[in-house]
Amino acid sequence: MKIDLNCDMGESFGAYTLGMDSAIIASVSSANIACGFHAGDPQVMRQTVELALKHGVGIGAHPGFPDLLGFGRRNMDCGSEEIEAYLIYQIGALQAFCTAHGTRLSHVKPHGALYNMAVGNDGLIRSIARAIAQVDSNLFMVALAGPHADHTAEIAEAEGIITLFEAFPDRAYTPEGTLVSRRLPGAVIHDPEEAAARAVRMAVEGVVVAVDGTGVPLKVHTLCVHGDNPNGVALAATIRSRLEAAEVAVIPMAESLLR
Amino acid sequence: MKIDLNCDMGESFGAYTLGMDSAIIASVSSANIACGFHAGDPQVMRQTVELALKHGVGIGAHPGFPDLLGFGRRNMDCGSEEIEAYLIYQIGALQAFCTAHGTRLSHVKPHGALYNMAVGNDGLIRSIARAIAQVDSNLFMVALAGPHADHTAEIAEAEGIITLFEAFPDRAYTPEGTLVSRRLPGAVIHDPEEAAARAVRMAVEGVVVAVDGTGVPLKVHTLCVHGDNPNGVALAATIRSRLEAAEVAVIPMAESLLR
Amino acid sequence: MKIDLNCDMGESFGAYTLGMDSAIIASVSSANIACGFHAGDPQVMRQTVELALKHGVGIGAHPGFPDLLGFGRRNMDCGSEEIEAYLIYQIGALQAFCTAHGTRLSHVKPHGALYNMAVGNDGLIRSIARAIAQVDSNLFMVALAGPHADHTAEIAEAEGIITLFEAFPDRAYTPEGTLVSRRLPGAVIHDPEEAAARAVRMAVEGVVVAVDGTGVPLKVHTLCVHGDNPNGVALAATIRSRLEAAEVAVIPMAESLLR
Amino acid sequence: MKIDLNCDMGESFGAYTLGMDSAIIASVSSANIACGFHAGDPQVMRQTVELALKHGVGIGAHPGFPDLLGFGRRNMDCGSEEIEAYLIYQIGALQAFCTAHGTRLSHVKPHGALYNMAVGNDGLIRSIARAIAQVDSNLFMVALAGPHADHTAEIAEAEGIITLFEAFPDRAYTPEGTLVSRRLPGAVIHDPEEAAARAVRMAVEGVVVAVDGTGVPLKVHTLCVHGDNPNGVALAATIRSRLEAAEVAVIPMAESLLR
Repeated sequence: MKIDLNCDMGESFGAYTLGMDSAIIASVSSANIACGFHAGDPQVMRQTVELALKHGVGIGAHPGFPDLLGFGRRNMDCGSEEIEAYLIYQIGALQAFCTAHGTRLSHVKPHGALYNMAVGNDGLIRSIARAIAQVDSNLFMVALAGPHADHTAEIAEAEGIITLFEAFPDRAYTPEGTLVSRRLPGAVIHDPEEAAARAVRMAVEGVVVAVDGTGVPLKVHTLCVHGDNPNGVALAATIRSRLEAAEVAVIPMAESLLR
Repeated sequence: MKIDLNCDMGESFGAYTLGMDSAIIASVSSANIACGFHAGDPQVMRQTVELALKHGVGIGAHPGFPDLLGFGRRNMDCGSEEIEAYLIYQIGALQAFCTAHGTRLSHVKPHGALYNMAVGNDGLIRSIARAIAQVDSNLFMVALAGPHADHTAEIAEAEGIITLFEAFPDRAYTPEGTLVSRRLPGAVIHDPEEAAARAVRMAVEGVVVAVDGTGVPLKVHTLCVHGDNPNGVALAATIRSRLEAAEVAVIPMAESLLR
Repeated sequence: MKIDLNCDMGESFGAYTLGMDSAIIASVSSANIACGFHAGDPQVMRQTVELALKHGVGIGAHPGFPDLLGFGRRNMDCGSEEIEAYLIYQIGALQAFCTAHGTRLSHVKPHGALYNMAVGNDGLIRSIARAIAQVDSNLFMVALAGPHADHTAEIAEAEGIITLFEAFPDRAYTPEGTLVSRRLPGAVIHDPEEAAARAVRMAVEGVVVAVDGTGVPLKVHTLCVHGDNPNGVALAATIRSRLEAAEVAVIPMAESLLR
Repeated sequence: MKIDLNCDMGESFGAYTLGMDSAIIASVSSANIACGFHAGDPQVMRQTVELALKHGVGIGAHPGFPDLLGFGRRNMDCGSEEIEAYLIYQIGALQAFCTAHGTRLSHVKPHGALYNMAVGNDGLIRSIARAIAQVDSNLFMVALAGPHADHTAEIAEAEGIITLFEAFPDRAYTPEGTLVSRRLPGAVIHDPEEAAARAVRMAVEGVVVAVDGTGVPLKVHTLCVHGDNPNGVALAATIRSRLEAAEVAVIPMAESLLR
């Protein structure tokens, strides 16, 4: 069995450091690198590509809205042509650093509000898939696992793009397979062992236990962990350790797809 | 005989229009497209790539300092690693739009202060050439023709990059082959026929007449014209017309190099 | 009788010119000056304050979302604390230029998406009014005339701010007193005489003729004209001329309130 | 005896935290607050004003170049009109938050490259002083103590602005009273007790011991400490403690001037 562990990285900017990239990198198999719109800058992008290469970690673009002040977390009412152009631009910029270091991008995972707005939004999914297809149709699109997954995959496929689905071992799920809102109590699982147990079940059985105790089937290619604080780093290390103990290989999403 | 006519384009931004791109495009053979740092934005970049393609015009990246407010015209004291990363980023972003439209970049011409600061600045030339080489060593670097040219070419060549030299038919030259400062009277030639006659002599003989009347040899691959005002557009049209009347083919710089 | 004619100004940025400020200024009595977030920059702000002063035109702040790329026209999902802070910042910045030139701000008119989102949005109106009150409670808030006006005024008044209402002589209105969407045919009135006749009726009778021919009462303190194209400038000149012919004094909104 | 301890604050931006403001605030008497160009944002500015007020700390503006990516540390070749407009804008923006919280600005200290470029640069000092004078001639200008001080004060005074001079207890000085370049060994003093002893001597005797052992007279109104790392915070606490033990009152610079 195989699974990918991905983490958003390269979110520092100029004099500002964000995220413990050099600590979390040891636990993951894919890095989603910010591309300078909501976070990241050219030097940070280069350094993060180097870091990923050094650790044999797959590299993906993590494009966001042009909103550095809001860290790309605020919904912006952009048109489909704007979205496409913003993604082509950001993917291309990161691709150039990959080329400079003799490697290639494997995937594109939208960031923050762009990621969230895309859930169940056919037009936005189509724009994202089209942008990716125009740059390199071999790039995977990463989207949220759950009830919208199949429909999302169909839309992307119509544009020639394969979708990989992502789940969150440290987040509570509804019986419908959607994330419990962060505003609700219990939405985030802080215990590393509990999160790791959930990760193992996601990887081995393709199932997440919902808040009502039911087991919900969830097609998952990659699990998202967080490197923006010491707890996140520790949680990711535990998840990796427990996955490997369960004989689940932690490998970049492009390879894990080939199972 | 062959020469390239190039023009800076794609300098609009959001709601702001700058330059008469759709008018000047008919007269030129290469477009230097701004990449979103000093000017340009993702949608403008895409539209300008489309415009260039439609007119069979060669496409180059026109990267600048991260200074939209100053239009990249203000010297900034950036380190060599910053310069390299900024150029890799910008070239990559534009490259993605070329890929999206089934074409390729031909060259890189730095903009404004970055272009001017590089004249005679070995370290900066090296940084620019290195950045280009890391993205695609088939891209030409465009630099100012004149006394620094041979040395510039050597530095770039050591990084694997071929330099093409640019002259300005509408600018006065010193007997040393440098541009007369814009602050001096007569620095800019406004008469289209005079500029055109100079362009023809540059292309046919590789010579520019200096302010003291002497003919100065100038190795030139491309002539720069301006599309930011109606006079510039008219002047460019006259230059093209007189070049063609003199049996000088106006073709993209990549092709003109092959003579 | 008195009315104010206002126009958005100071929307140029760096090398980019937008709007025919020096032409439209002769026709208006109030200038809403962009504050550097969606448009405008410090030098443009200073020059526009000088222009307004020279022509005896009242000066207001025209703050917007931090979205230069989208010209502040895209809805952004900002929290109330963000909105308040963005407005305090922008109003203060413009106020400093007024102080530098020995004058004072008279009003605040939100721009673009911020203006439109506020219509009927109690929380957003409250945030805008609170921001204004924290800087200077003598500043008027400008909002859209129409069915929401009284409620808007109440919310602002609770924060200590007086609201002035704005109408558009060149826009079609519904029988409910709302603007006809720009997407519908006939939404914009291009004929200067027709727009001027509507402006006179708004000023003299406080009435606008809706698309179904009914006269709709509309409490109006200021009429908005546009200086971003030659037609807008000509239309504004005609409106001013016809207002004066009808013995309606065109004076800054602060003074017109005192009737 | 009296002295001011100042620290640059409010340098966080959006999701990015920089500086340990809430820790260093207990040790200082003046806060120089970033104004959104090189660092800081509207919400951070408001929060930092609140923090300063809560601790009875004087508030100054800390304007910089429009270079968030370079944190205002890179020289930019801006004209005098640009500099003036950038400072008026930034001071005004911060002033509005002071007004909102019922307090006033006391001083203006340029940041980074703008601060360093001004040392010995008459034109730049004049631009800074003029900008301050146009907003509020009661604001002090903070500049580097040392051999240029008297001349700097004269230039500012001609614009109606009083200059206060700043020294660095944790920096080595040349016998001429200038800072030893950070690139040289020993340029920065890391031992809190040594820095504190130097601070006491600066405050009590107006003398700094240069690298050659000579005592150099230095007119000083305020001492700069740093809150961007735990060592800086500890060093500032020691300085304050030793100053008070030596019966030097640590008070805001506006008040310390009145001695």
